Amino acid sequence: MPSIRSGRSLALAVCGLLLASVCARAQPDPLPSWNDGAPRQAILAFVHAVTDTSSPKFVPVEERIATFDQDGTTWVSHPMYTQVVYCLERVPDVVKAKPALAKLEPFKTVLSGDQAAMAKLTMKDLEVILAATLSGMTVDDFRADVTKWLATARHPRWNRLYTELVYQPMLELMQYLRSNGFKTYIVTGGGQDFVRAYSERVYGIPPEQVVGSMGGTKYGYAKDGTPTLTKEPKLLLNDDHAGKPEGIHMMIGRRPHAAFGNSGGDREMLEYTGAGDGARLMMLVLHDDAEREYAYGPAKGLPDTKIGTFSQALYDEATRRGWSVIGMKADWKRIFPFEQ
Amino acid sequence: MPSIRSGRSLALAVCGLLLASVCARAQPDPLPSWNDGAPRQAILAFVHAVTDTSSPKFVPVEERIATFDQDGTTWVSHPMYTQVVYCLERVPDVVKAKPALAKLEPFKTVLSGDQAAMAKLTMKDLEVILAATLSGMTVDDFRADVTKWLATARHPRWNRLYTELVYQPMLELMQYLRSNGFKTYIVTGGGQDFVRAYSERVYGIPPEQVVGSMGGTKYGYAKDGTPTLTKEPKLLLNDDHAGKPEGIHMMIGRRPHAAFGNSGGDREMLEYTGAGDGARLMMLVLHDDAEREYAYGPAKGLPDTKIGTFSQALYDEATRRGWSVIGMKADWKRIFPFEQ
Repeated sequence: MPSIRSGRSLALAVCGLLLASVCARAQPDPLPSWNDGAPRQAILAFVHAVTDTSSPKFVPVEERIATFDQDGTTWVSHPMYTQVVYCLERVPDVVKAKPALAKLEPFKTVLSGDQAAMAKLTMKDLEVILAATLSGMTVDDFRADVTKWLATARHPRWNRLYTELVYQPMLELMQYLRSNGFKTYIVTGGGQDFVRAYSERVYGIPPEQVVGSMGGTKYGYAKDGTPTLTKEPKLLLNDDHAGKPEGIHMMIGRRPHAAFGNSGGDREMLEYTGAGDGARLMMLVLHDDAEREYAYGPAKGLPDTKIGTFSQALYDEATRRGWSVIGMKADWKRIFPFEQ
Repeated sequence: MPSIRSGRSLALAVCGLLLASVCARAQPDPLPSWNDGAPRQAILAFVHAVTDTSSPKFVPVEERIATFDQDGTTWVSHPMYTQVVYCLERVPDVVKAKPALAKLEPFKTVLSGDQAAMAKLTMKDLEVILAATLSGMTVDDFRADVTKWLATARHPRWNRLYTELVYQPMLELMQYLRSNGFKTYIVTGGGQDFVRAYSERVYGIPPEQVVGSMGGTKYGYAKDGTPTLTKEPKLLLNDDHAGKPEGIHMMIGRRPHAAFGNSGGDREMLEYTGAGDGARLMMLVLHDDAEREYAYGPAKGLPDTKIGTFSQALYDEATRRGWSVIGMKADWKRIFPFEQ
């Protein structure tokens, strides 16, 4: 017969178990927009392993870093990257300030509004446009201009603001990781200052946790003596491909434990993340849902659109290395926050 | 005669006041190593203004950013910057790997051990030594080497580890700001990767909150295919003078509300901080205590040592702009943690 003391301990233990079970049940599903497939299971298993102090894969809270690519990973990037749309729409203002540009390519083509001609602009042309439209103003003026543009510019397919076209499942994932002690970062090939203009509002990610392609700034003074930081047409880091781990080292100084991407530009970030010891989570979003969003590959025979492409080679590498592939069609119940 | 209800209210109010007073008394002094002069008062008034929700100068917690220069502001920088000592002591290893350097200047002079000749090395010579000793290895190997060196290298005057020569009052200030919702950053002219090797342990500041002079890295692979990040002899940002606000924008993307420095290299950081609206705190440490630490200026007639110099012009500017000058002698009860 058990003693009173051990009887009490048992009762306490049972109460504890009951409480734990009630608490577990009381917690809402942290990933309600995810179907219960392999990617969702991989996320839950990973978070459990790194947060359970008795797990051999436990990760101290200060080392819980998760990095998210943006275009095609956390928001829509088709038919054109949002920042490129912004830059093209800024061209008339730039030409107004420097009228001589109107007769020069690629500005002439952009001003013509000829969509067929614009579709033929090369990467080199785009670089000229980006340099002209993303420099010469103060960082404060730039931020104000991006904010103003985002308040009205709409995506042609949904007629929604670009900032509404974020993926609800990824917002839930970010929030779930944060509620488990992770610092979440955007690590984007896009401009750092561009994304910072809305990252806190849209993703709950503060400006200091945005790693992007970085242009130099120049400290100087306005006419009234006020100190200014002016954006220069000087690229310090192209935060794509190998530039992603390089940018992560520069801005964070720690290797992530989880990394999320959707294209070849994210390969090195996932590889670098996976090369760390202990629990690591690497995931790629595959756009295979033409009806609700877009379908492009060429992985799994989807059409090759050349924008943020998920190649068959990347798909094979993901399989080989154990990176999770998130199929939008099968894995996401809901794509956008505005869908009910 | 007061009603029962108002009597109860009064009793509750009195209880509340008593409790508040007990709580206030129960809190230990957050700045025990500071004498009660103007700088201490400025810190307390600033923190009160930005954290009191009823204050017109209240600052939302996410915008509470405080930036600290390191050399001469949070630890000893005389007679030589610690990182320069490290680089000079690394020269023999570098020459071992590349023996041809032994016959070339400035390596020849450093290897000679001739202190008088070494004291004559120019800034250009130092740059050559820094480039040679801070690149060519992976970021992991570099971190391990710095950690190893710091575990044994000692400052000649105190025969203490360099990491013991941090200023206790500044550690208290960092902690006090953090306990009031601030994110604390090191913003140093020194190497970002060097300071990251010990910032968390020594200052409680994680690597992602260290802004320093940044060299490029190159993503590649070791012989066994492991991804590596190798330090390159390419300077992306010289985080001194105008480079400080530029580095702050790049790494943080917000203007600090408080900034701390000790020399001309910090002038632009303080100016940029002070140009923001609302409550801002700018402070400079003046080394005027030859007995307990060092005395150098030339502000207030102290000797000009050319290392991290606090000029008379900076002193006058501080006075004009209302930046606080912390006199070590008068304002700090205790300099180092090891002093009791």
